[in-house]
Amino acid sequence: MRQHPDERAAALRSWFLGPHAENEQLFHELLDETVQDHFRWRKSFRPEDPPAISPAACRSPVHAASVAELRADLKELADELKHGVPFFSPRYKAHMIGDQTMAAQLGYFTALLHNPNNVSAEVSPVTSRLEMEVARDLARMIGYDSADSWGHLTAGGTIANFEALWIARSIFYFPVAVALAAADLDVDLNVDVPECARTPLRSLDLFGLLNLSSEATLNLLAETRAIAGGELLKIALKRYSLSSAGYQDYARTLAARFGDPLEAGVVLVPATAHYSWEKIVRALGIGANQLLFVAVDEHARMDPDNLWDRVRRLAARRRPIIACVSVAGSTEEGAFDRLDTILEVRDLAEAELGVTFHVHSDACYGGYAATATWRADGKRRTADEIREATGIAWPQDSWVDSVKALAHADSVSIDPHKLGYVPYPAGALLLRDGRARALVASDPPYILPSHVPARSNDAVMGRFAFEGSRPGAAAAAVWLSHRAVPLDERGYGYLMERTAVGAHALYEALRIADVSPCRIVTLPKPDLNIVCFLVAPPGDATLRELNALNEGIYHSLSVQHPYDSPEYVISRTVLRSPVYEGVAEPLLRRIDSRLLGEWPEEGLVVLRAVVMDPFLATSEPGSRHAAGFVRAVRQAAHAVEARSGSLTLI
Amino acid sequence: MRQHPDERAAALRSWFLGPHAENEQLFHELLDETVQDHFRWRKSFRPEDPPAISPAACRSPVHAASVAELRADLKELADELKHGVPFFSPRYKAHMIGDQTMAAQLGYFTALLHNPNNVSAEVSPVTSRLEMEVARDLARMIGYDSADSWGHLTAGGTIANFEALWIARSIFYFPVAVALAAADLDVDLNVDVPECARTPLRSLDLFGLLNLSSEATLNLLAETRAIAGGELLKIALKRYSLSSAGYQDYARTLAARFGDPLEAGVVLVPATAHYSWEKIVRALGIGANQLLFVAVDEHARMDPDNLWDRVRRLAARRRPIIACVSVAGSTEEGAFDRLDTILEVRDLAEAELGVTFHVHSDACYGGYAATATWRADGKRRTADEIREATGIAWPQDSWVDSVKALAHADSVSIDPHKLGYVPYPAGALLLRDGRARALVASDPPYILPSHVPARSNDAVMGRFAFEGSRPGAAAAAVWLSHRAVPLDERGYGYLMERTAVGAHALYEALRIADVSPCRIVTLPKPDLNIVCFLVAPPGDATLRELNALNEGIYHSLSVQHPYDSPEYVISRTVLRSPVYEGVAEPLLRRIDSRLLGEWPEEGLVVLRAVVMDPFLATSEPGSRHAAGFVRAVRQAAHAVEARSGSLTLI
Repeated sequence: MRQHPDERAAALRSWFLGPHAENEQLFHELLDETVQDHFRWRKSFRPEDPPAISPAACRSPVHAASVAELRADLKELADELKHGVPFFSPRYKAHMIGDQTMAAQLGYFTALLHNPNNVSAEVSPVTSRLEMEVARDLARMIGYDSADSWGHLTAGGTIANFEALWIARSIFYFPVAVALAAADLDVDLNVDVPECARTPLRSLDLFGLLNLSSEATLNLLAETRAIAGGELLKIALKRYSLSSAGYQDYARTLAARFGDPLEAGVVLVPATAHYSWEKIVRALGIGANQLLFVAVDEHARMDPDNLWDRVRRLAARRRPIIACVSVAGSTEEGAFDRLDTILEVRDLAEAELGVTFHVHSDACYGGYAATATWRADGKRRTADEIREATGIAWPQDSWVDSVKALAHADSVSIDPHKLGYVPYPAGALLLRDGRARALVASDPPYILPSHVPARSNDAVMGRFAFEGSRPGAAAAAVWLSHRAVPLDERGYGYLMERTAVGAHALYEALRIADVSPCRIVTLPKPDLNIVCFLVAPPGDATLRELNALNEGIYHSLSVQHPYDSPEYVISRTVLRSPVYEGVAEPLLRRIDSRLLGEWPEEGLVVLRAVVMDPFLATSEPGSRHAAGFVRAVRQAAHAVEARSGSLTLI
Repeated sequence: MRQHPDERAAALRSWFLGPHAENEQLFHELLDETVQDHFRWRKSFRPEDPPAISPAACRSPVHAASVAELRADLKELADELKHGVPFFSPRYKAHMIGDQTMAAQLGYFTALLHNPNNVSAEVSPVTSRLEMEVARDLARMIGYDSADSWGHLTAGGTIANFEALWIARSIFYFPVAVALAAADLDVDLNVDVPECARTPLRSLDLFGLLNLSSEATLNLLAETRAIAGGELLKIALKRYSLSSAGYQDYARTLAARFGDPLEAGVVLVPATAHYSWEKIVRALGIGANQLLFVAVDEHARMDPDNLWDRVRRLAARRRPIIACVSVAGSTEEGAFDRLDTILEVRDLAEAELGVTFHVHSDACYGGYAATATWRADGKRRTADEIREATGIAWPQDSWVDSVKALAHADSVSIDPHKLGYVPYPAGALLLRDGRARALVASDPPYILPSHVPARSNDAVMGRFAFEGSRPGAAAAAVWLSHRAVPLDERGYGYLMERTAVGAHALYEALRIADVSPCRIVTLPKPDLNIVCFLVAPPGDATLRELNALNEGIYHSLSVQHPYDSPEYVISRTVLRSPVYEGVAEPLLRRIDSRLLGEWPEEGLVVLRAVVMDPFLATSEPGSRHAAGFVRAVRQAAHAVEARSGSLTLI
């Protein structure tokens, strides 16, 4: 079952078109087959129908002129695109975009010719099914139980995260709605309370109702369907859900019915959270002021001690927590939060404080890394086994524990269009307990029979997903890519290993590089494949000068305008105070402790290389590019220093 | 400048691959050129770099095995897709999906090979620019001033509508936030109040603050940037915006500061509004109970009298209106609200009641129909001119007035992936006054200088748009399609005419069809290209029997499972009480007035044919398909009746 390393390396070389179109013949053949097949199908579909476009029409001068213009415009587009960014090149190391798998490109195009719409199986009987298969693939990849979980594709990570928090918000307030509806109907209900036995719902105060576990809440949902012929659930959802009542009336209702001036529910995120989380809490009406940032450690991972401290203080103030977002692969650093430890914090909060919250893993970037933890036989690999395969000290045991903990997150978002190597748009949302989708369904759940299992009615995804029309081609692309590149050590797992090995090689090259009179200061070893570092100028530079140097290097090594073509392409990020203190302070101490005082005002510019390229790990061309990358950084640093007058080199 | 009709007809035949792949040679050539060109580019990019994939690697048995599997999987995908729905066929008349323009398909694929990400120009220097061009195209199409307006592409209509209402909500509450911040800083400000002179902000009560025009509010935004070094704006946005404070704190703040138990703001939509509007108000926290449906008339257009009545009654109760959504091309009927009249209602409300609201046009379906109102020289066509071109009584003068009124809507959503004939995903949002985007920007607007014009900083679209990563390929597809098919009478305008003419031909064929002993009852003539009708059984059928017949016809003529292949494919909708009374009651009276009593309980099933096919209007194959469609409906009706026992035919 296990493959020889050489076999994996050979297979890898069949997955991509290649930076020099090495697999062009294959790609061209397959593309040709698929398009010819499509033509044949059109011709054979209802061949008795008269042609809509006669051969004579295709020979008219107007047709010819129109075609000539299309040809010219298409060429213009193709030529323009070459002034874009060469993501396929090993010289591109800036953002989380690399080449796509040929399977994904060909799958996308093949389905594009049909243009199915995954809003409903009625307009996508095939690709809606493929989407469900893909959702099951991803659920299995993170260790979810396929029978209970549920998921679907989205336009991207922002929409997936938005939906996750929308659902978390709906779960959070649902017990309140049921309690109010039960009071209206004078019905008694019991519910599971963390660390307690079954408790009468009416004995809970508002804070208690907002601190039931997802499971207890979804069990409550299931129970209420049968009560008073569904009337209780109907009243709860129509009269007492935030979704129905809206923010103005809801706050008034809570105050009037509970007499409780309860503080607003909060959402906890690590300092590394993507900027879209702020958009999301704003749009959902939760409010940006309720988005609380938890400090990160030196590795840019959420600090569990700080989280626990936050939770304790919130509980003391009776401030409920709607959700805690953990990041698996932060956008800037690729950092993986210790999700296992975060879940322990929640256990502790339930046991000691009687409070709980939804745990969402934003694995938009890092989700596919879970493939490295799977053997071909469906069993998990140990950290030792993976290290044996990579031949380096990656991954750490704790990284594997974090990845395995994904199975216990209430919801997870994953972007196939990042480490899945498929074209945009392809995000995904997964729920551990698919019953939750009923709380955001467009048809109120009280019209669905209670025995319906989580995955039925997937035929009309638009009922549950936030988006309506969605490209079935995206599902086809992901599906074909998962077929061609298995979601375990043979396929994507190997890709992940290779990018991690490549990143570590680059990291080492940077760490030992001589860029004197400057010097390179690296962040801790990457959790996966994003290498962060900065170049310190000689002498007693101020933080502003340090930042100017790195900003200057970034400008030299990035595509600022369509015709730019730097030797290598990198990106940069800015570590801001106070949330990035855990990362920035140790770095600044290594450079010059006197800079610590300037940091809160200035921020710290850090250079960033994302290794999507699986070939950087191989001796040829890998080592040449690692050396070339370091050389480009050195040249850029020297050029910036020379321009600023502090160096006379070059 | 004007083209001869034959020239337009000849050009039309160069835009699509065709139902029998009539333009296959052309498509194949262009596809081949684009992919070969892409290969050449990859090979010529940094040719000095060693290959990542050696020729030897491509000859290994593992490579060969992997390729064989990819080929088999791709073939499986292609074969499966043929069991989907043949949108390209003239026999498909179910939903708003037809064939795509070749320009769109080729443009998408060409850009897909590059996979740019329009989240930011840094990862899409070319396609971000194309997106801005496309947004300008669409703005011009609806008559917006290109200097002041702003827009972008979205994943689809739901996201575009969501963003529109998010922005409307932000505009709506902004004066409240400024008033509270001004009180904190003890600053005096004046503002334009409908039908009044400049009024001190502090003289307005809460209801007055929530009834300022968009323009007055955006002027206020511009003014506040300069006050107290931006501090006022910062306090307004950080402390007193709903986006920052969130629903719980916000309601409390309003009550505490204004002492006003103001009722929740509402959103008015016509009965025809797409079901996603309910998702949107739920997610935004406005609340589904605040979504108020305005009755529609016989043509399924929002009834302006009912709207006025609603507005008057809301004003009397001091209930503010966040927005009124008008529909240009309803999903089910293709109905165009009389937007000109709706805007008059708003004028009247400002003059007589002192209330106002944001007007959004959901033109997701019908937006491209505006192209029929443009001449090639950039001047508007009159209704007479268009009728002269179509040769039928379409369009009505009032339809042209409704379309021209789009120029005055505060925001408009348009889906290129519907009547733009481009592949999914392609929605679009347009704002008449681009300054509004600052209220939802991810970087708070107080850090932007006040003199920045609306369209600058488009380089990072992710700051303003709700989505993050988005396919640049979608922008390329729309851009190339707009190039190939001009957005006026020569191009899309002609397409719109042809589908309208085809729909009217189908309508006439159904109106005079003999399906005895049943009979066909048509809804009023379509506003564009969606034909709705139903088949009435013989004798004294109950409404349930009537619905069963039409549901049965729909089941016979739709793709319920992957292998279904009915003669023609249609769809159906259900007219529900009370919001569809305007449409359903006249219909039921024509069938049997006794059914009126059953309707509120049962709803009324209506069959629906969407004519995306521009060739239905031509004598051959058009008339053959119109006749074939009627025959298929008759056969299906007779078969259902025979099964139900009320007919012995067949």
